[in-house]
Amino acid sequence: MAILLNNDGQWHDQWRAAIKAHMPGRAVIEYPDTPDPDVIDYAMIWKHPAGDLERYPNLKAVFSLGSGVDYLDAFPALPDAPIFRLIDPNMAEDMALYTLYWTIHFQRLFGTYHAQQKNAEWARYPTPLAHDYKVAMLGLGAIGSHIAKALARNGFDVSGWSRSPKSVDGVKCVYGPDGLQAMLPEADVLICCLPFTKATYEFLDHAILSQLKRGAALINISRGAVINEDDLLKLLDSGHIGGAALDVFHTEPLPQSSRFWTHPNVHVTPHMSGATNPDTAVQIIAKELAGFENGIMPPYPYRRED
Amino acid sequence: MAILLNNDGQWHDQWRAAIKAHMPGRAVIEYPDTPDPDVIDYAMIWKHPAGDLERYPNLKAVFSLGSGVDYLDAFPALPDAPIFRLIDPNMAEDMALYTLYWTIHFQRLFGTYHAQQKNAEWARYPTPLAHDYKVAMLGLGAIGSHIAKALARNGFDVSGWSRSPKSVDGVKCVYGPDGLQAMLPEADVLICCLPFTKATYEFLDHAILSQLKRGAALINISRGAVINEDDLLKLLDSGHIGGAALDVFHTEPLPQSSRFWTHPNVHVTPHMSGATNPDTAVQIIAKELAGFENGIMPPYPYRRED
Repeated sequence: MAILLNNDGQWHDQWRAAIKAHMPGRAVIEYPDTPDPDVIDYAMIWKHPAGDLERYPNLKAVFSLGSGVDYLDAFPALPDAPIFRLIDPNMAEDMALYTLYWTIHFQRLFGTYHAQQKNAEWARYPTPLAHDYKVAMLGLGAIGSHIAKALARNGFDVSGWSRSPKSVDGVKCVYGPDGLQAMLPEADVLICCLPFTKATYEFLDHAILSQLKRGAALINISRGAVINEDDLLKLLDSGHIGGAALDVFHTEPLPQSSRFWTHPNVHVTPHMSGATNPDTAVQIIAKELAGFENGIMPPYPYRRED
Repeated sequence: MAILLNNDGQWHDQWRAAIKAHMPGRAVIEYPDTPDPDVIDYAMIWKHPAGDLERYPNLKAVFSLGSGVDYLDAFPALPDAPIFRLIDPNMAEDMALYTLYWTIHFQRLFGTYHAQQKNAEWARYPTPLAHDYKVAMLGLGAIGSHIAKALARNGFDVSGWSRSPKSVDGVKCVYGPDGLQAMLPEADVLICCLPFTKATYEFLDHAILSQLKRGAALINISRGAVINEDDLLKLLDSGHIGGAALDVFHTEPLPQSSRFWTHPNVHVTPHMSGATNPDTAVQIIAKELAGFENGIMPPYPYRRED
């Protein structure tokens, strides 16, 4: 038997090395090189083609190589085998540090100081203490709640919003339409950590984003498609949104023609806020797979929302 | 009786307002407007002229409005009244966030991504996980140990060096010349939090800084004079030091002619890493002064090193 490997066709050497190190004795077959579908008992995949998983009659479980599930949502049908999401604490930590970096950037006016340096200008400005700086987190899933806790631990005044009620240590949790309406006008920075589903497609549009107070900042680390990019650009142009750090976009790589590249108040990063690390990821999957074979379900099963 | 106020002549309105709010009933006399020296029983000062404190025969205690003590070291003599340093947890938190910001900046290659944005270039690079990124802290005083703990709490691999042995939660503490020699070549980023004393004047010179590995980064939040700036520029030019975030300089404001302003790998900030906040500072001093009058010594007495 063998593991089917397809990390969107990328970095397979690193994945093979990690599997060899942490799952010794397991054979690996790289998609699409699968001459005998019967030998596949597990799949480790990311952005796999829809419909392919149904080809393997002996498939016992699928391990997705990331926390995002939008590519799975796009599958017209799912295999009988359960699918498990990868929630790597290292990736969550990477995303927390990315978010912390931009939160501090906006709080402490690092953009202003960077601009001053070009003019050899020495001037400082009062900035709010962390506990007076209001961070609003959209989405309190595994990643969002981890990041919200990290920001709170670093002293920020953190609120978090989810569709249904949740509880996160150190975070003021609100939910539903009323919770959102209460949270947005207070926020100094809004962090988008929503999962991308049918319900969140362009959820952050003019109606939502304009509820932020003038000059508030935005950080997006979820998916580009949860934001209406034209609406965001209009609010950036008017100064209603004072700054944005965007790691994800409707189209990636971000097209050369995008105004985000050149907007003075936009920071573009190339979807690097939380890269999967093959070595730590395979360690987690190896443990989950061993547990699965002994009847212990891995902690993050993929479920379809609708 | 009255408090003598001199915050280097700056922001006295804010200081007066904070004293009025948190030390009601205390009169304030602003230096140099002190017609009757006998009425001064306490002084709240920052960068006060040497020799002036000896003019007040009824002075009971002096509260310095910052944690740095170099201006006090420069006094040829000290008044009989004890001097207390201000260690405001809010300021320590500000400095921790400043340090965290630049540590993440160097760890996650944000300078590279910023440069790429100018060319609409979408490319990402593997970066070390926080627990594989080695932070070396020079100086484990009240501020240095607070920052070292904050970095460790955020997942970084933190070592800390002090002249004599110390112990800080979550931090690998080393000391003395041997400890320094062991720590420097391992560090990915060196953070300078040394007090400025005769012993630390240009302590970070070519001999010390060249022990860092090629490409290591430097963050200085203590005083400019602890670094030999010419040596640092040479090491930046050669690429031995890969990046520097400098908040403090030999001469402040940093002269327009300084090469630090224009060096591509240097980030200049105008001594803003930990600004004293009059409101929280006066709350702390009010409490310490009330204790002092009841025989309880404030926690951070100023002591001369030599």
